[in-house]
Amino acid sequence: MAISPAELAAQLGVPFRGDGSIAIEGVATLQNAAPGRLSFLANPRYRQYLGTTRAAAVVIASQDEEHCPVPALISANPYATYARAAALLYPSATTQRGVHPSACVDPDARLAEDAWIGPMTVIEAGVVIEAGAQIGPACVIAQGARVGAHSRLVAQVTLCHGVQIGCRALIHPGVVIGSDGFGIANESGHWIKVPQVGSVVIGDDVEIGANTSIDRGAVEDTVLEDGVKLDNQIQVGHNVHIGAHTAIAGCVGIAGSARIGRHCAIGGGAGILGHLELADHVQVTAMTLVTRSLTEPGIYSSGVPAQPGKAWNRNYARIRELDELARRVRELEKKLAASGEA
Amino acid sequence: MAISPAELAAQLGVPFRGDGSIAIEGVATLQNAAPGRLSFLANPRYRQYLGTTRAAAVVIASQDEEHCPVPALISANPYATYARAAALLYPSATTQRGVHPSACVDPDARLAEDAWIGPMTVIEAGVVIEAGAQIGPACVIAQGARVGAHSRLVAQVTLCHGVQIGCRALIHPGVVIGSDGFGIANESGHWIKVPQVGSVVIGDDVEIGANTSIDRGAVEDTVLEDGVKLDNQIQVGHNVHIGAHTAIAGCVGIAGSARIGRHCAIGGGAGILGHLELADHVQVTAMTLVTRSLTEPGIYSSGVPAQPGKAWNRNYARIRELDELARRVRELEKKLAASGEA
Amino acid sequence: MAISPAELAAQLGVPFRGDGSIAIEGVATLQNAAPGRLSFLANPRYRQYLGTTRAAAVVIASQDEEHCPVPALISANPYATYARAAALLYPSATTQRGVHPSACVDPDARLAEDAWIGPMTVIEAGVVIEAGAQIGPACVIAQGARVGAHSRLVAQVTLCHGVQIGCRALIHPGVVIGSDGFGIANESGHWIKVPQVGSVVIGDDVEIGANTSIDRGAVEDTVLEDGVKLDNQIQVGHNVHIGAHTAIAGCVGIAGSARIGRHCAIGGGAGILGHLELADHVQVTAMTLVTRSLTEPGIYSSGVPAQPGKAWNRNYARIRELDELARRVRELEKKLAASGEA
Repeated sequence: MAISPAELAAQLGVPFRGDGSIAIEGVATLQNAAPGRLSFLANPRYRQYLGTTRAAAVVIASQDEEHCPVPALISANPYATYARAAALLYPSATTQRGVHPSACVDPDARLAEDAWIGPMTVIEAGVVIEAGAQIGPACVIAQGARVGAHSRLVAQVTLCHGVQIGCRALIHPGVVIGSDGFGIANESGHWIKVPQVGSVVIGDDVEIGANTSIDRGAVEDTVLEDGVKLDNQIQVGHNVHIGAHTAIAGCVGIAGSARIGRHCAIGGGAGILGHLELADHVQVTAMTLVTRSLTEPGIYSSGVPAQPGKAWNRNYARIRELDELARRVRELEKKLAASGEA
Repeated sequence: MAISPAELAAQLGVPFRGDGSIAIEGVATLQNAAPGRLSFLANPRYRQYLGTTRAAAVVIASQDEEHCPVPALISANPYATYARAAALLYPSATTQRGVHPSACVDPDARLAEDAWIGPMTVIEAGVVIEAGAQIGPACVIAQGARVGAHSRLVAQVTLCHGVQIGCRALIHPGVVIGSDGFGIANESGHWIKVPQVGSVVIGDDVEIGANTSIDRGAVEDTVLEDGVKLDNQIQVGHNVHIGAHTAIAGCVGIAGSARIGRHCAIGGGAGILGHLELADHVQVTAMTLVTRSLTEPGIYSSGVPAQPGKAWNRNYARIRELDELARRVRELEKKLAASGEA
Repeated sequence: MAISPAELAAQLGVPFRGDGSIAIEGVATLQNAAPGRLSFLANPRYRQYLGTTRAAAVVIASQDEEHCPVPALISANPYATYARAAALLYPSATTQRGVHPSACVDPDARLAEDAWIGPMTVIEAGVVIEAGAQIGPACVIAQGARVGAHSRLVAQVTLCHGVQIGCRALIHPGVVIGSDGFGIANESGHWIKVPQVGSVVIGDDVEIGANTSIDRGAVEDTVLEDGVKLDNQIQVGHNVHIGAHTAIAGCVGIAGSARIGRHCAIGGGAGILGHLELADHVQVTAMTLVTRSLTEPGIYSSGVPAQPGKAWNRNYARIRELDELARRVRELEKKLAASGEA
């Protein structure tokens, strides 16, 4: 679709400044925008490209407006306003309805009339697919699972038996929800499987990235509250509880029975040990290992930033003798105090 | 099923103490148990919920029994006894048999009469599926692979050509076994593929978590011995050998040709470099990086626990100059010794 | 196939020394080679097995030749020469052609006559599959995606809409290419989805390991240049650009808009934050966290090697007070200087 920047600003409810005559047909980055493209400035790293941008208009904060050489949509939150603009410029693929003839649907499943079941998808007995839900190709929805209204499973998603997904979910390919948790009990050196009899319950407006795995609860359910956003390749252990509107970046591992608050942000590659609690509004930076409950909001870190290899090798060798170094410093302090007294 | 706690204790071969009249119908946590539920106390974190539990009975160690307000099944290993109890209370889904009409089975595959091949599953030539094995929906079992008796592939599992799986395996969705190892040889800056001509051989009673990947050997086979338990999202490189009854938590990466002993326990997110050996009974804690062979049993660590961000930033800045700090301490020691002599 | 070592050396264009009469039928490791097997010595760890090898011939560097008790193929790059030899000894599976009757191919897809579409695979409208491409079982190739000539998708691969794959790609099971990037904008504590309108463009001769995920660009495309090699379980965020001939080991996470140079090597489990640039020829060791752009070629590290647990616990406790320790050393230095002056 093409729309004038002034009209777009009006639809988004934000002030517009400049010449509104060039129609906007899509989005682009500041540095590569062709005419007819909407861009945005949210990350200061990209401010350097503002002066020379050829965008038809830029979504920008008021404090940056004076440096903007092209028409501007002014927003206190340019990234969010850009997100809404892009959603207008790129309407989602039209939804489909019905059951593809190659799908395999159990007669005891209950599908909303306007839901869609894609090719090669398997729907087992007792499954409920609600209004407008889009189950893409090659998914497996096992016995008794439920997918809420207007949710979309893109392709190759597996929902194990009994898993409950809320409304307007977006679940990317390769996601597995409801696999058994890692429950094993050691007896004389051998492992006995602990039956995993809980399920997974996921709220509304949740997005789950490609190849992420969410285990079912051992006894009670694994829970993701409304508005949780998970990136790719995340591992969520059994009985984990993730509070509403928490966002988790790729490659994070969350061990069993951890309880993460609302509005948390977990950086990529972080690890959270089991049976811990993270308060609301906790932020954990990339590759941090959380070994204790974090009861106060705030930022927590332990990821060690890279150094040139030789310097690092010298430094990590010292980490291995750090306790001894600290003892030597204590010894020096004592000696110096003694010599001062002497 | 419903069973009296006394009868359950008798079946499990453990002592029972208390009123055996309330039938047990399922399991629950100590804190949320409704009447009619069996609970257990294994992790001391949850001892706080014992006093007020409404469970019909609790599996508990003898030293905790006196604090248990409800009937008790006494066990030296409450978690293992609970595991057996739960298996009795929740018998596995009844197995199916036959080939789903939507499956695609090569006429040169050999399927046991009582095996089951689920919908949309592909079975290539030369495959052997042994007695009672359950191949769930949307799996791909490539040429010449073999699945042992009573193994279960839940759904969306890929076994590449020639992979051998033992008896009673449980393999969760998204698992890939037998993909090519990462064998590349550099020649003048370009990479040449090294053909991966080994396979993967997996023993009996192995469980493999969702979205885990196990590469085929470069020359010889990648091997998982009997009783190995892998959690989700694990990467097992080519030629890796994992000893019997070793358990590995989620998100671990094991590089090529590493050799891990028997009865090891590897914590989540750990990394093990290639061509190393870990002795039997080695334990590696979460997010630890193993860079050398560990020839002695014991616990090994290098995961750095999280700190509040500001404190961490100050401390990691010091890590970057730790070698220099150590040199300065040495200098102080020399000076002080000299001044002492003076 | 069986071939004399002399003939093999001739085909590979390398010098041969020794008795060329024993036919080579396959490859093996030095330590386990049966007669009739070709082995190689590239990693010095395995030199210990050279003296007793029973291999029919060994690919070896000239400086090691004198210690080789069996016929030798001499190469300045034994691993690369071995790779070429193995490719001769184990020719790839013969390619197939046509469309399996169980596949679901949209009439608006364009398939080369000699391409192959395996069982249960879904090909949507607008897809282009070029000459000789092999799309294995249970893949999903979404609207408008393109697979270049002689590429192979092994099985269970998902290409989302519009994704472009070059020629001679090898893509392993469970790979997802073109899933939405993790683009979310926070507004009053709730997350708004940022439409991901870019795609993924992958060059020629790229290999992608099992269960790896590559997100589509937010605005422009995610790009992998020619000859990139990715191992298993890697996460590539939106807008990432990976330069030609870069190799990345398993479990690496690359955050959005990172730009990695050509001929880089990234070790397993490393993490690269977003919006960074890595120069050509940068090497990052295992489990290193890259938090800043690396503008110079060289090796970079921050992975902390494992220690015995008790020693580590003492040392990491000191890391938590390292800034304080450094201040105490500074204090000692001042005092000692003052006492020296006194």
